[in-house]
Amino acid sequence: MNEEFDFQFGHVIDIIDKTGAEIVGLQFPEGFKRRGIKIASFIEENTDCRTLISADPCFGACDIDRNLLSRVDVMFHFGHSVLEPGKYENVHFIECRSNADIEQVIENALKKLTGKKIGLVTTVQHVHHLPGVSEILETNGMEAVTGTGDSRITYPGQVLGCNFSAARDQICDEYLYIGSGNFHPAGVSLSTGKRVLVADPILNEVREINTEKIIRQRSAVIAKCMDASLFGIVVSDKNGQIRMDTAKRLKELAHQHDRQAHILSMDLVTPEQLLNFKVDAFINTACPRIAIDDVGLYPAPMLTPVEFEIVLGERSWDELVLDEIRGE
Amino acid sequence: MNEEFDFQFGHVIDIIDKTGAEIVGLQFPEGFKRRGIKIASFIEENTDCRTLISADPCFGACDIDRNLLSRVDVMFHFGHSVLEPGKYENVHFIECRSNADIEQVIENALKKLTGKKIGLVTTVQHVHHLPGVSEILETNGMEAVTGTGDSRITYPGQVLGCNFSAARDQICDEYLYIGSGNFHPAGVSLSTGKRVLVADPILNEVREINTEKIIRQRSAVIAKCMDASLFGIVVSDKNGQIRMDTAKRLKELAHQHDRQAHILSMDLVTPEQLLNFKVDAFINTACPRIAIDDVGLYPAPMLTPVEFEIVLGERSWDELVLDEIRGE
Repeated sequence: MNEEFDFQFGHVIDIIDKTGAEIVGLQFPEGFKRRGIKIASFIEENTDCRTLISADPCFGACDIDRNLLSRVDVMFHFGHSVLEPGKYENVHFIECRSNADIEQVIENALKKLTGKKIGLVTTVQHVHHLPGVSEILETNGMEAVTGTGDSRITYPGQVLGCNFSAARDQICDEYLYIGSGNFHPAGVSLSTGKRVLVADPILNEVREINTEKIIRQRSAVIAKCMDASLFGIVVSDKNGQIRMDTAKRLKELAHQHDRQAHILSMDLVTPEQLLNFKVDAFINTACPRIAIDDVGLYPAPMLTPVEFEIVLGERSWDELVLDEIRGE
Repeated sequence: MNEEFDFQFGHVIDIIDKTGAEIVGLQFPEGFKRRGIKIASFIEENTDCRTLISADPCFGACDIDRNLLSRVDVMFHFGHSVLEPGKYENVHFIECRSNADIEQVIENALKKLTGKKIGLVTTVQHVHHLPGVSEILETNGMEAVTGTGDSRITYPGQVLGCNFSAARDQICDEYLYIGSGNFHPAGVSLSTGKRVLVADPILNEVREINTEKIIRQRSAVIAKCMDASLFGIVVSDKNGQIRMDTAKRLKELAHQHDRQAHILSMDLVTPEQLLNFKVDAFINTACPRIAIDDVGLYPAPMLTPVEFEIVLGERSWDELVLDEIRGE
């Protein structure tokens, strides 16, 4: 199969052969799911195993299909790097590195970098490109640095949608983010307060991140919740998203401030499911992107934990940052 | 709280007090979810416990929130009767009997009954009405009978959307179904081949079940799938819906008939999630209602296991019945 991402088929077949796995689970993020049946057929044709494909939504290594895992000998989780090292012995993380050529877009980015010491940040799809990027930067008289991040981070310079610790680790003038999308680099900018330039190898485009819109939206959500008296605190059951302790702490905090709060436990968080609960506002402790990406879609305004603390006056407005799920 | 259903609040508070439960889980079917926060507040005000509310979709006792259960001392599952006796020790099934008055609608039904021996069928919401209904029928010179059903059935005469065994247990001329909706009585009719009269206490209406439309729709789905070569077999992880053995058998059967099949494992089955899988047809082994109620909503025709066997020629067309999940 000719792919723009490396699915490491040889490595997958090797693991199945070596472990003698008879039942093999396959889990894909949403963008890769449509290749699932083809990949399952390929595996069944090249080994003696039978495959089971996870059809549940999957948004990260925070979202292991534990039900499927309990029924298979080994499971391949495609598209993400390990999040909780050692926790899921039979899960093999197949990272799916991008085959995109990034040289041109980095050359273009060079002209727009203004600092001398550049923090490199990226996602797992492009993390193998960082040494090459460093080299280009250094040839051009700049210094490239990467941070290691906390225990949820596998590679130096890697950021997740819920964790920018590898960016905060860096002492630098500004950041260069390699990848597509704006969520991750916006998180880096909000978390560090520094300029972030995006080198997007998919659109072959260089752009500067502007966090104004996010800050405006989040401020509006906070303002709307100032007088809210009944809160629904959302907790997800997904392996890497469970923040029940945070939720319990926020519930107590609400009570201390004479507000009511109830904890809503769920797997997949959707606007439709929360329609059933008539509250003045939700507080989302699950995937931090939910409150940001889906702003306005929920039946009541949805705060992050940090924002709820601002509503209660336990934090000041200028402490507004994106919510993160941190490791050790 | 004044309710048209009996939520057994006294019994709930008793259990919490007696067990000394500190963390209490609450699970509601979709129709009762909007009362969740009020019920949680009531419980917290009248006991020393803290509640956690399940916000995941819930479609029956086949759909226990096991994630929530693992975090609580006791869980109350409202609106359904026990499905797998002894399996979930800390789950208390609160059946929520209807307070509807049924006398008038039964009187009206009497005029439309033509047989002498009447099989009574209903759902758990109305099962406490059966003795009264029997009495009315007997006063009017008819004989009322109820079947016990298999191990998934808690009460004589009770039917589930996936199990009509209590109807098949009965030797009778025709059936009287007490309840709202047409799915359950249609299943009884298709499963027994007999006339079914519905006494609907919600609409206060008596109607006869006509299964023609369902048969026509199912026949059309089967016809569309005759030449299908690639199948996606859907298996749900929900406690009372897992039919992985059935799925594996169907996959082998497909191969024996030179058709390809892949197993898609998921929790909640939705048209959106299955959009990712390009197959000629789906075979649904999860909740039997999915293929029937949502006919036409899926990105490819969706068969039941029985219907797939008809497609393969392993069963004849006149063996077409609704899919059931059977107990012992």
